[in-house]
Amino acid sequence: MSARPLNVGLIGLGTVGSQVAERMLSWGPQLSRRAGVELRLKKVLVRDVGKRRPIEVPSDLLTADASELLEDSSIEVLIEVAGGDEPMRSYIERAIQVGKHVITANKVVMAKHGPELLDRAADRNVDIYFEAAVGGGIPLISTFRVDLQANRIERVSAVINGTTNYVLGRMASAGLTMADAVREAQEAGYAEADPTDDIGGFDATYKLAILASIAYEIKVRPREIYREGIDGIEPVDFRYARELGYAIKLVAHTQRHTGRVEARVHPAMVPLDHPLARVEGAENAVFVEGDLVGQVLLVGQGAGGRPTASAVVGDLIDLARSIRRGVQSRPSFSFDDRVGVIPIGEVTTRAYYRLRVADRAGVVAAIGQVFAEEGVSISSFIQKDAWSHDQTAELVVTTHPSLDASLQRARERMAALEPVHAVSSYLRVF
Amino acid sequence: MSARPLNVGLIGLGTVGSQVAERMLSWGPQLSRRAGVELRLKKVLVRDVGKRRPIEVPSDLLTADASELLEDSSIEVLIEVAGGDEPMRSYIERAIQVGKHVITANKVVMAKHGPELLDRAADRNVDIYFEAAVGGGIPLISTFRVDLQANRIERVSAVINGTTNYVLGRMASAGLTMADAVREAQEAGYAEADPTDDIGGFDATYKLAILASIAYEIKVRPREIYREGIDGIEPVDFRYARELGYAIKLVAHTQRHTGRVEARVHPAMVPLDHPLARVEGAENAVFVEGDLVGQVLLVGQGAGGRPTASAVVGDLIDLARSIRRGVQSRPSFSFDDRVGVIPIGEVTTRAYYRLRVADRAGVVAAIGQVFAEEGVSISSFIQKDAWSHDQTAELVVTTHPSLDASLQRARERMAALEPVHAVSSYLRVF
Repeated sequence: MSARPLNVGLIGLGTVGSQVAERMLSWGPQLSRRAGVELRLKKVLVRDVGKRRPIEVPSDLLTADASELLEDSSIEVLIEVAGGDEPMRSYIERAIQVGKHVITANKVVMAKHGPELLDRAADRNVDIYFEAAVGGGIPLISTFRVDLQANRIERVSAVINGTTNYVLGRMASAGLTMADAVREAQEAGYAEADPTDDIGGFDATYKLAILASIAYEIKVRPREIYREGIDGIEPVDFRYARELGYAIKLVAHTQRHTGRVEARVHPAMVPLDHPLARVEGAENAVFVEGDLVGQVLLVGQGAGGRPTASAVVGDLIDLARSIRRGVQSRPSFSFDDRVGVIPIGEVTTRAYYRLRVADRAGVVAAIGQVFAEEGVSISSFIQKDAWSHDQTAELVVTTHPSLDASLQRARERMAALEPVHAVSSYLRVF
Repeated sequence: MSARPLNVGLIGLGTVGSQVAERMLSWGPQLSRRAGVELRLKKVLVRDVGKRRPIEVPSDLLTADASELLEDSSIEVLIEVAGGDEPMRSYIERAIQVGKHVITANKVVMAKHGPELLDRAADRNVDIYFEAAVGGGIPLISTFRVDLQANRIERVSAVINGTTNYVLGRMASAGLTMADAVREAQEAGYAEADPTDDIGGFDATYKLAILASIAYEIKVRPREIYREGIDGIEPVDFRYARELGYAIKLVAHTQRHTGRVEARVHPAMVPLDHPLARVEGAENAVFVEGDLVGQVLLVGQGAGGRPTASAVVGDLIDLARSIRRGVQSRPSFSFDDRVGVIPIGEVTTRAYYRLRVADRAGVVAAIGQVFAEEGVSISSFIQKDAWSHDQTAELVVTTHPSLDASLQRARERMAALEPVHAVSSYLRVF
């Protein structure tokens, strides 16, 4: 074992940070043996030094002054688990600039600025590890970075947001409304006080941006990814889903096409026999298809302090081994700038529509006419008994694969038909 | 990119070897870019140089003389995908001795001699990579070696033999006898002409020996693992399994106890809602539980030329990157010699028994007495209608968790009861 310890600075002592600190402090000898060098937690940046914490961290390790970590040249590794864009991006940038290696669980920073930070790190001959930024403790980045390197990645499909998965699961199993399911998730600690980031699909979009960038070695920006949240889905949609043989999941999907990639996050009807349909609660699942390996499925806890700390400390051990062996940095990522993301309209999808229509002759013909004119082939058509109180009927249509633009146009055209009161739901079928 | 190419010798040009050669020859520039060094296939050892092959390999690369690979000092990496114990173990040992790195898909050699070969490689400052030896293209070794290093591994449960899984699946779905299912598997290319290695559980035992050794950093020998094959399971057992809410799978399981580990391979009743119950056909699935990460499930094609080649070439790229960066070898594995395997009798399991009994008074009491005396608590008890032609009835008992020795003794004692014609089946419940 190397004689000189490896000094580590930690930013953040919340759910993840406290677990990282705890493992480093209580399991030091094991970690150091595996790393081949003594791992020493030298400083921890927190907002409030005096705050009471569930984990005991020696008070002389705590500071509220970032420069005590960033400008301490004896600290070789910076672990950032505080989250959010700024000031974390600046901290990471500064750390790289002064020659520190970085380990981060920050999906926002990696999704928005990952390629630039990785380029900069390569210039400075340091590393950025970010296994914890996507899928908690599930080995994803390393799988793409190492195990699947002999493959051309064809597609990645994932359920990578635990909050929406919990909410959708409760709506499906207990018939809750979205509002009630979200409230329950908040009470159970699965959703933030402001759940927009999860419910709106932003969190999944950040994660998909990272996965797609690594999978295809291209720069996929969160803003380039088509995004739809789960708001708008009603309990009745779960009944139809079941009747048609589907579960409703927030799916993140990316697929290789010639010279371009498809990348989208939206709720989708997933066939019940697909592994993604079975992902439950706060679990995450990532389905990868490579041209040699075929299909690989990786499942685990995608969030939470302990699984995320597992990934962070795993990265630390891997990094420490490299440093011990005198390796300055891993081979840098190379991102091909010429490959872009296909606009959603040009992608082939399938659709599920739920409509409220006037219960009278000619409605089905009018709707059929719209699909025919858009060149969309209908896969299933369900009309339930009319509701006598307002003379309307509920109508559900699913389609065969078509250009997404045609499916969206069909939706607009149906909504404009006089006997159609509303297109109450429009979901893609996976 | 490094100016000097990395010369590779390949042993074996069968199902896996031909896919490795094909990817190296047809995808050279991509692989070399990812590896950071030109990867050059210099020599391929085959049994018969003149044999016609589905993959075109330049004939000057082929040789039937092992020394042309082993004694060529320009070859830095030896890939062995021929399989079997000898002469492969000797080849690998010789390669290490003369300072070559080794990549192998050989589960027999790694299970039987892995710890010694890894020690020897560490002494010679070279590496052995063996991701392909277990679970085809599923990232397993790397997951234990890197991603889960911050964890104490609690247990690993796996369905890692595709042949038996295919056979059991066909027995369950089509009601085939084992003999017919094996014949069908042979015709479909899923089973060898002599299927003993798979059906008898040997293959799964080799793989579990490797996984357990890596997971716990101890030397687990195949012969120390309790092993039962799937022969003896009858179609009727699948009917009872379904009735009781189980699937029948060949399960490889290892679990940490204080100072010792449990390690066993046997057919088991797996609850239908457990992920291992859903593994289909030639698929493999590995369920890992770490103290920080919780449960992680990894699923993919566990065998076959392309998935296995994916792992081999992935290892090659990882190794080439290390070599390019001037790293002589990865940190060596360290195996703790003091941790042993618990004898099966001392392990806690649950049991399923199927008995043929005389259809008369007192039988249930006699059987209940055996369990009571062994201190085993009964979980379910099914007696089906008597068979009038021979005055016997079929009786199925499942138990709560008990010492395996007690469950085995209960089996023997029941078999010895006068009214019990036979204990036709004894399976553990997972």
